[in-house]
Amino acid sequence: MNKLEQYLAEQSSIIESALDHLLPKESEYPREIHQAMRYSCLGGGKRLRAVLAMESCQSVGGAGCDALDYACAIEMIHAYSLIHDDLPCMDDDDFRRGKPTNHKVFGEAIAVLAGDALLTYAMQVLAELDLDATLLILLFREVTTAIGSQGLIGGQVADLLSEGKSIQSDNMEYIHENKTGKLFLASIRGGGLIGGATDAQLAAITRYGQNFGLAFQITDDILDIVGDSKKLGKAVGSDLKLAKSTYPGLYGLEESSRMANDCVMQCHQALTSLPGQSCVLRELAQFVLDRDY
Amino acid sequence: MNKLEQYLAEQSSIIESALDHLLPKESEYPREIHQAMRYSCLGGGKRLRAVLAMESCQSVGGAGCDALDYACAIEMIHAYSLIHDDLPCMDDDDFRRGKPTNHKVFGEAIAVLAGDALLTYAMQVLAELDLDATLLILLFREVTTAIGSQGLIGGQVADLLSEGKSIQSDNMEYIHENKTGKLFLASIRGGGLIGGATDAQLAAITRYGQNFGLAFQITDDILDIVGDSKKLGKAVGSDLKLAKSTYPGLYGLEESSRMANDCVMQCHQALTSLPGQSCVLRELAQFVLDRDY
Repeated sequence: MNKLEQYLAEQSSIIESALDHLLPKESEYPREIHQAMRYSCLGGGKRLRAVLAMESCQSVGGAGCDALDYACAIEMIHAYSLIHDDLPCMDDDDFRRGKPTNHKVFGEAIAVLAGDALLTYAMQVLAELDLDATLLILLFREVTTAIGSQGLIGGQVADLLSEGKSIQSDNMEYIHENKTGKLFLASIRGGGLIGGATDAQLAAITRYGQNFGLAFQITDDILDIVGDSKKLGKAVGSDLKLAKSTYPGLYGLEESSRMANDCVMQCHQALTSLPGQSCVLRELAQFVLDRDY
Repeated sequence: MNKLEQYLAEQSSIIESALDHLLPKESEYPREIHQAMRYSCLGGGKRLRAVLAMESCQSVGGAGCDALDYACAIEMIHAYSLIHDDLPCMDDDDFRRGKPTNHKVFGEAIAVLAGDALLTYAMQVLAELDLDATLLILLFREVTTAIGSQGLIGGQVADLLSEGKSIQSDNMEYIHENKTGKLFLASIRGGGLIGGATDAQLAAITRYGQNFGLAFQITDDILDIVGDSKKLGKAVGSDLKLAKSTYPGLYGLEESSRMANDCVMQCHQALTSLPGQSCVLRELAQFVLDRDY
């Protein structure tokens, strides 16, 4: 484990513990829904989005921990989107992060409701953040726009409708920008807002976020072809089997890899203007490219 | 059509038109999700929750129209909960408000996502309300608490888990208080907050809301036994067939009717301390009791 991985593991443990503290206890009535919410939100995942929010806050001179609860809300939203995405009527996945998907354990009805409840609870956590009310409203706008029918959900819809069809590159870019990219962007921009970013700093953060999301997605597509299923925790080649279009599918492996590299360079350039600590953001961009899971 | 019904029809048309204006257009990409959102949110329903929000705002001296967009957000949340409630893995209903349910028209995947998108969009609408930021945060707390895993969703879970079992009265009360009652309460309390209610006025509004919700639910249960399926727009007796417990099932028709009457009396008493126009709220409580649909 290198230094960054060790740092990520430490951060991930802080985030896990904050999520554990924030989420309703399993003993709360009705137990089934709280068990299901905790099952999918705790005990796994790279917590990339949460780390990005906290590091972004630091990169403009804030304290990372000021963005911790915001980061947790983002992780809850991420967990909700995965639960619904895995449903039989959607991607019909049996495994996620190396364990059975929510509906496999709790049944479809509870899985639908657990996703709903995590989304709702994320909003409740946002509404309780100890921040200036005007800033809080900005965060609400940032998040709800990112995850709505013209954001994350729009990306899921476009992805769903493109299954089994060969799609154009602009459609694939729409899918990735929205399904994956917008939540990354909300993490990073939200962290920046909490840290007190100026307009120019927010623009730099946005540029970092857009390129980070793209690098992440391209690398995901590449790993799905060349990766190791055990490390990924899901069946390798599943996207190909469904004949979904991917970057390697459209551009080939070599060109995709070049594109991802270019994104990371853009990330690094964007960070140069920021006044705070941004070394982790810098290494994270590279990490996303180099990871083998 | 009596005077109240005429007034409700007028208000309903104002709310419909505001919803039409607020919701993303069908032509927005991806079309399928926006069609599905609009299908379930427009063109039907009594708009009781929206009317309650606006009238509650008036009852403390505010202008009803100040709560119009808030009222629309509540209707979007109501529509989301119905779409998910009707899914095959939940209540498996084919008809709602006299037309095929969302998943019957758009398929299960889009129906799940349309529900998600309506919930998310409701939050986006709240975040854009032209109100003081501190008041807005109060509204966010009000709504998210009402519809979360210890509110609306908690009620749906308890309802789901009680299906086919004979349940105790306290469990049934939990279900109704949460599944139906809390959103009524958020409508009414939110309207009051927008109208500038004092703590004492908010307490009176809350008492009205709690009793209104209960009267509504008891009457719903009674109508489900004695009502006319055409007017209700759904199969009569469906709750009985699923062996769900209902007020008439637990207390008998006569006692249930007495309980509903008592709630309406409580509603009327609660209104006496309010400074603004509350005659519609007064008549609405009676209307909920007397309706035959």
